[in-house]
Amino acid sequence: MADLQRIEHASVHVEDLEEATEFYTDAMGLVEVARENGTVYLGTGLTENFELAVTEGGTGIEHFAVRADSADLVDEYEGELGARGVETERVDGDEPGQEAGVRFEMPSGVPMEIVTVADEDYPHGNISLPSRAGQAPSSIDHVQFFTPDIDADLGFLRDTIGMAVSDIAGPMDDLEVAFARCNTLHHDVALKQMPEGGPDHTSLHHVAWGFDDIGHLKLFLDTVSGRGMDFERGIGRHYAGNNLYAYIWEPGGNRFELCAEMAVVKTDEPDHAEDYLSATTAWGPDPPASFDEGSGLVQK
Amino acid sequence: MADLQRIEHASVHVEDLEEATEFYTDAMGLVEVARENGTVYLGTGLTENFELAVTEGGTGIEHFAVRADSADLVDEYEGELGARGVETERVDGDEPGQEAGVRFEMPSGVPMEIVTVADEDYPHGNISLPSRAGQAPSSIDHVQFFTPDIDADLGFLRDTIGMAVSDIAGPMDDLEVAFARCNTLHHDVALKQMPEGGPDHTSLHHVAWGFDDIGHLKLFLDTVSGRGMDFERGIGRHYAGNNLYAYIWEPGGNRFELCAEMAVVKTDEPDHAEDYLSATTAWGPDPPASFDEGSGLVQK
Amino acid sequence: MADLQRIEHASVHVEDLEEATEFYTDAMGLVEVARENGTVYLGTGLTENFELAVTEGGTGIEHFAVRADSADLVDEYEGELGARGVETERVDGDEPGQEAGVRFEMPSGVPMEIVTVADEDYPHGNISLPSRAGQAPSSIDHVQFFTPDIDADLGFLRDTIGMAVSDIAGPMDDLEVAFARCNTLHHDVALKQMPEGGPDHTSLHHVAWGFDDIGHLKLFLDTVSGRGMDFERGIGRHYAGNNLYAYIWEPGGNRFELCAEMAVVKTDEPDHAEDYLSATTAWGPDPPASFDEGSGLVQK
Amino acid sequence: MADLQRIEHASVHVEDLEEATEFYTDAMGLVEVARENGTVYLGTGLTENFELAVTEGGTGIEHFAVRADSADLVDEYEGELGARGVETERVDGDEPGQEAGVRFEMPSGVPMEIVTVADEDYPHGNISLPSRAGQAPSSIDHVQFFTPDIDADLGFLRDTIGMAVSDIAGPMDDLEVAFARCNTLHHDVALKQMPEGGPDHTSLHHVAWGFDDIGHLKLFLDTVSGRGMDFERGIGRHYAGNNLYAYIWEPGGNRFELCAEMAVVKTDEPDHAEDYLSATTAWGPDPPASFDEGSGLVQK
Repeated sequence: MADLQRIEHASVHVEDLEEATEFYTDAMGLVEVARENGTVYLGTGLTENFELAVTEGGTGIEHFAVRADSADLVDEYEGELGARGVETERVDGDEPGQEAGVRFEMPSGVPMEIVTVADEDYPHGNISLPSRAGQAPSSIDHVQFFTPDIDADLGFLRDTIGMAVSDIAGPMDDLEVAFARCNTLHHDVALKQMPEGGPDHTSLHHVAWGFDDIGHLKLFLDTVSGRGMDFERGIGRHYAGNNLYAYIWEPGGNRFELCAEMAVVKTDEPDHAEDYLSATTAWGPDPPASFDEGSGLVQK
Repeated sequence: MADLQRIEHASVHVEDLEEATEFYTDAMGLVEVARENGTVYLGTGLTENFELAVTEGGTGIEHFAVRADSADLVDEYEGELGARGVETERVDGDEPGQEAGVRFEMPSGVPMEIVTVADEDYPHGNISLPSRAGQAPSSIDHVQFFTPDIDADLGFLRDTIGMAVSDIAGPMDDLEVAFARCNTLHHDVALKQMPEGGPDHTSLHHVAWGFDDIGHLKLFLDTVSGRGMDFERGIGRHYAGNNLYAYIWEPGGNRFELCAEMAVVKTDEPDHAEDYLSATTAWGPDPPASFDEGSGLVQK
Repeated sequence: MADLQRIEHASVHVEDLEEATEFYTDAMGLVEVARENGTVYLGTGLTENFELAVTEGGTGIEHFAVRADSADLVDEYEGELGARGVETERVDGDEPGQEAGVRFEMPSGVPMEIVTVADEDYPHGNISLPSRAGQAPSSIDHVQFFTPDIDADLGFLRDTIGMAVSDIAGPMDDLEVAFARCNTLHHDVALKQMPEGGPDHTSLHHVAWGFDDIGHLKLFLDTVSGRGMDFERGIGRHYAGNNLYAYIWEPGGNRFELCAEMAVVKTDEPDHAEDYLSATTAWGPDPPASFDEGSGLVQK
Repeated sequence: MADLQRIEHASVHVEDLEEATEFYTDAMGLVEVARENGTVYLGTGLTENFELAVTEGGTGIEHFAVRADSADLVDEYEGELGARGVETERVDGDEPGQEAGVRFEMPSGVPMEIVTVADEDYPHGNISLPSRAGQAPSSIDHVQFFTPDIDADLGFLRDTIGMAVSDIAGPMDDLEVAFARCNTLHHDVALKQMPEGGPDHTSLHHVAWGFDDIGHLKLFLDTVSGRGMDFERGIGRHYAGNNLYAYIWEPGGNRFELCAEMAVVKTDEPDHAEDYLSATTAWGPDPPASFDEGSGLVQK
């Protein structure tokens, strides 16, 4: 299996839907694409697709999806996953703008989907939906989880799903972090070993948004400051992925990463850094203590 | 007289008020501060002040204003202008957020005001009015006119108003362009000799907006593209003022300059460039033929 | 055949080697990687590889190369090309940092190579060779030719080499421009039909350099201004590829494009624009008349 | 007294002159303007002036200078300071490119100069000295000291020198920080009360460099990473001054601030923030503990 395109969307829970949605639209400049059965679907406004689904009740990740380039490929994944004993569910058309889709769980319990979407064009900076504001991110970029078993999740993404591994860090028998990609952007899914003393379960570390450049990212921070977010870390540069980053806690109760200049990577062999700090710090300083906290996994 | 602060606002006419206002707010991200007697007052949303007043009927400049730092200074200007035989009119509180004000005409007939405003704080990037969008400019920057008598207008700004001259270009007895400033930003008012064969009257060349940087300016262009504007020139760099520029014709029928990195200038002696091209071109290429057109002066 | 990575380098001729090299290093900030047999090899300094080879004598393109991810793949290409009647030559180790390599001609006569290189890591912004200056581009981005037979060249790249086509423009039976890619960056090779009245032979239109963002591109223009280059067009945005552009003529006698924000494209079906102007203009204005000129093809 | 222009230069000591100078030129891209009597004079390369003087032996500030617009003004300052009982010394032509100059001590013991310089033009982005690299800052921006008596130093700058106060923070009878300016840029000299438990003497907090924009600042950080500097804080935005910041410890042993988007301020009345944190943090997070350390004052 292969030919996956990119991360397509993430579905998260928030503590207060209206407060969170006001932040996503009025402050972040995202576009409300649809609202169905208590879930608000938000897009960046550079395509017709949604990239964040938001539902009230708790915090954390509910599922995420990566894009396939054809419905045939979704069928192939359904067959292959079944053959390997992974339970699957069809989700064709279950979400706005989505056509074919298959859903299953990663070993750590995070629900993942492989889907096709109606709008397949690449984004053009000068064409946007009317309600998009200039500070809005250009795309969803990736998701990162704390996992109780990084090897199990990484093996699943690599061997069962066919994703490539871009960078890993930490001892080979006790990895601290791993970055897996669908295609050529450095990572669509990042896995982080839960730190010593942390809770022994899967938890969302962050949903990441991509920006055109550091100036775009700065305009975003200026616009969302004082609108209910907490700025946690950055602006800095990661070594693995070479991307610029900032981290905020949004009013809904989840961490967002804001990133720019993510590396385009084409080799098969992952780079291997000594530890998490050297993998994630190109300029310094070290991450704050709060960086060991996640926002959870939504249990249905 | 001196101690003027900066250009405060420009008042222009447009062909279709609703179409133009939709562009200024939805596309440009400006904030509608007030709407009175057929005039819409728009601000950048980083202060409470308006920076563009728009009225339907024709195109071109109706008046512009520079800021004084006290009502006493406005009184002094009223007295001094009267003593020099310049007809003045009090405009205290005539426009939203404006307190004291005096109005008079430049030799070329452009109405100019010296005013005080309610919100005197300097803008903070991270504090904005809610309806401001990230692509909105950070401030009005300057105005430029075609004038039939550049020496008369420049002499008035320098000798009667007390503005400083930053740069001039062309033969000393036949200047092509001149840049005058209130304080330290390179120009608040630029004067351009009407080119050979052009109409023999005063006309607005452009109203200029300031942006944080070239990335901000790019986001603006992406957002307003396809929304009824015509892109005329740029992105380039001027030599005089050292500013980055782009020029568009907005749907209301006037030219807007978008600029960033305007020089802070503190010397008294103007630089003198050989001609208009060398003064205004740091990178190249030359301006298009359409650059010799203006949008007029509103005659009451 | 497939699994090509990216454009790796371009080899051009210049009128005066020392004058051109001084511009490439002192003004552009490139790093001289090697100098052998009258050819200077220059890199961006973010990897150990060279990206531009420069030789004195005339102007225009001498050859270009794309990267393969293994020597086995180079062997496969050699076999497959031979089987299709395309004459090939091994160029293993013929250029600095190059390992395996095979060389052949496109239908229009442009020599092309498929090579492997010693330094395969992706670039990290915070690690560079000492003599790299901050304004230096981040990578070579693509090459564009005028070709007398766009269909023949495009067919060769797509059917024989296995590259994907991202965008095309003009009537299907008389294409004006076509963009072909190795992997996911929008184009590595662009083909342009020679305009009416132009010379009836292949000619280099430009070698393109990639920059981190528009602010990086601006710093480059500031640094190279007044150092012997002519600024021809931009800064603007293309529609096809969605990239920001500027075009200069460098002192060696060739056109360079400077680009940023090149789209990452993953679909198989090319977009089709009505004509060259709509494909290449997102903001406007139209290209200058000089844009129909090329700098030639070096005939051995 | 008034009509001061801007900070002109700072003179610092470093532990190892050759190591530090290599960093300033090869990594930072500054230009060595002169080397006399064991002192290296470095400029940004956008003017002929030097902006940093560096001497071996210890760390910290040795003196700083602000620019006057005429030798007459220097004479007036000499007279006025003498009349107020401040000891002065003429330093005409004592440093490269410097013409008239008078030197004296602030109450806290920091030597300050008021000088005129040979090159008075404002910088043009597209004209630079040949050895300037693109990552080099655009200008020296300001200096900040720890002072044992903030009221004494601030009173001197305001009442004796005639500088304006832009922002202050902390209780009025126990100020934590104060920002004083020569002209319209938000601060040329910032004063910080030494924190509880800190050493009871004057010490350099940082020398600040100005950059065109956040993209320029990022290129600088990429280029100097791994060249012997330690990244301490940022990239963030201050509230007072509205500037973007990053802080590094350079190999010579002093802290440099890198800043962009410094506010242009024209009002006479300083803003007053509740405390240091609210004055200096627009986005968050709080400064690290190391931010209470300085690098000293050079005692002759």
